[in-house]
Amino acid sequence: MANPKSVLESYKKEINRSLEVFFNLQIAKSNKKAAFFKNSLKSLREYHLRKGGKRIRALLVMLGYTLFKNKRTAGMAKVARAMELIHSSLLIKDDIMDEDILRRGKPALHYFFEKLHQKKYKIGDSKHFGISLGILSGDISSIYAYGSIIDSSFPNQYKIRALERFNQMYFDTVYGQMIDVLNSYRKKVALKDILEVYRYKTAKYTIECPLHLGALLSGAGKRELNLLSSYAIPLGIAFQIKDDILGMFGDKKTVGKPATSDLEEGKQTFVMFFAFKKANQSQRKFLLKCFGQKNIKIGDLKKVRLIIAETGALQYCQEYANLLVRKAKKALSVFKGVNKNTLFLLNYIADYIIKRDY
Amino acid sequence: MANPKSVLESYKKEINRSLEVFFNLQIAKSNKKAAFFKNSLKSLREYHLRKGGKRIRALLVMLGYTLFKNKRTAGMAKVARAMELIHSSLLIKDDIMDEDILRRGKPALHYFFEKLHQKKYKIGDSKHFGISLGILSGDISSIYAYGSIIDSSFPNQYKIRALERFNQMYFDTVYGQMIDVLNSYRKKVALKDILEVYRYKTAKYTIECPLHLGALLSGAGKRELNLLSSYAIPLGIAFQIKDDILGMFGDKKTVGKPATSDLEEGKQTFVMFFAFKKANQSQRKFLLKCFGQKNIKIGDLKKVRLIIAETGALQYCQEYANLLVRKAKKALSVFKGVNKNTLFLLNYIADYIIKRDY
Repeated sequence: MANPKSVLESYKKEINRSLEVFFNLQIAKSNKKAAFFKNSLKSLREYHLRKGGKRIRALLVMLGYTLFKNKRTAGMAKVARAMELIHSSLLIKDDIMDEDILRRGKPALHYFFEKLHQKKYKIGDSKHFGISLGILSGDISSIYAYGSIIDSSFPNQYKIRALERFNQMYFDTVYGQMIDVLNSYRKKVALKDILEVYRYKTAKYTIECPLHLGALLSGAGKRELNLLSSYAIPLGIAFQIKDDILGMFGDKKTVGKPATSDLEEGKQTFVMFFAFKKANQSQRKFLLKCFGQKNIKIGDLKKVRLIIAETGALQYCQEYANLLVRKAKKALSVFKGVNKNTLFLLNYIADYIIKRDY
Repeated sequence: MANPKSVLESYKKEINRSLEVFFNLQIAKSNKKAAFFKNSLKSLREYHLRKGGKRIRALLVMLGYTLFKNKRTAGMAKVARAMELIHSSLLIKDDIMDEDILRRGKPALHYFFEKLHQKKYKIGDSKHFGISLGILSGDISSIYAYGSIIDSSFPNQYKIRALERFNQMYFDTVYGQMIDVLNSYRKKVALKDILEVYRYKTAKYTIECPLHLGALLSGAGKRELNLLSSYAIPLGIAFQIKDDILGMFGDKKTVGKPATSDLEEGKQTFVMFFAFKKANQSQRKFLLKCFGQKNIKIGDLKKVRLIIAETGALQYCQEYANLLVRKAKKALSVFKGVNKNTLFLLNYIADYIIKRDY
């Protein structure tokens, strides 16, 4: 088969095009609506088309379909687009909750509206205006997501199954986010609460549901969905652990946010949990001092990194993530009589998730 | 036929029971989830079952169905419930945006979480915690709304049509809310922007969409839907004008919020627009002083009420609302061969909307 990277790249282009065409149409359709709304849609389009979106969820929708069908169908791009639309909706609201002002190297959407208020409006509080318009733009994006499935060209019985699965995923993700928010208001968080967030907010959402959506629309049954879950859940948890490592050790330019931001936010991660657990008294004291500390110095970040490495926490997390990826790949080997090219791509993605540097 | 009030009361009971059974089931299903989540669902149940919900939207879903079918069906309650679930989702978020802390005489949901934080958590900002959990609870409620339609027992092709209509309604309402939020950050708002909010955030949402949902599920076609719109849109605008009058002249006990709150918030209403327009210089000066003023004195409220009456703005608004209700009722007279009892109830509701005192 062709180079996997270029195959995935061509899928990604198709998804980006689908998003762009969709937003252009919505903007054109809003001509009779208030000008402010039309401009808000333009900001939402810019947000969706920013460079740096990996489109991993949309890709997995496509692959969940082609695994059981040898041909791609134009309708899949709409459902794949739904995953990107709901993803942006969740990111917009996450950034409000985490008070992050950057996303993919540009202003978070609520922060964009906050700055717009400072420039254009005389009454009221800019920050609150930003939060309100952020919530509403997030809602618009989730409505577009449902609409993309409802409007797709699959038979009604398939669409209903896909909508049911999509709705369940959205629920699971909001549940994961609720626990994540709660964790950020606690000084000490149990490993089980961290893993609950990883399972719901990452594994089910980023890997399992997209694959299931594609598979359901190809007509796959319960057994196939369960096999996909055995691949998706360990891979998703590995994906999140890798994200946390990048959040602490990654490069600002490639990751798109400062390497200090997870630490400053006091983000309760798998990596930090084991760093605290394996640290000696003086190391723990230093970690505690830096954890949740705003405006952290680069020297302190480097020292935190050193502690994570020296305690063995980094190696432990890397090895654990590797183990999960092997488990995921093993689950794939059970599939018989499916599209070999897609199977190859799913293996490739499992490796990529560990090796990526952004 | 039976007394219309008691017929509507029996529908309302059915809807309340459907909501209660639904939440009890969801709470039971969340046993394996984090305890915090289960408790949040209990708060969400309490929020939905508070006294004072008119259930007007859910009632209209039922009536949109029985207008074309002579029998009620158990499945309708689920779709009617969807309207109440999305309504709560929108109210929860509205209260965040408007910074209202009361809803139906009890704490708004984000404010409930704000107070919970003050009591139980040591880290972070209570207000921000409240906003975050409010957004997430609102999202859960909207997910339950979609789920109620997806899970209903109608044929798939009907469910897809209903979901399409529901999704369009949700979009229209968020659009209306966006313009409403924007209006509240402007000192001077054009009548067309006020009416745009009334059309989208009230008429389409409160009256038209519920009727369409019920009608679609009964198998009604485009012509019937259009006729229902001719009833729904004027009635919805009348409903909002009546709401504004109650917001200014109503009794705290029956309306569920202080009579000063619209004035303190600086809410841009049809009534205030005409009060400003018809006021003389000194009256306008006084209105401007009170408009958007926090902690307004009861004497000043009374003086504002007097100005609204003396300028003729109150009478104009009442007459305009009456005219719209007559227009709505006239639209009903075109229907032939439909359920006469339901037709009678729709006429009754049109009158009630003008006469109600809460």
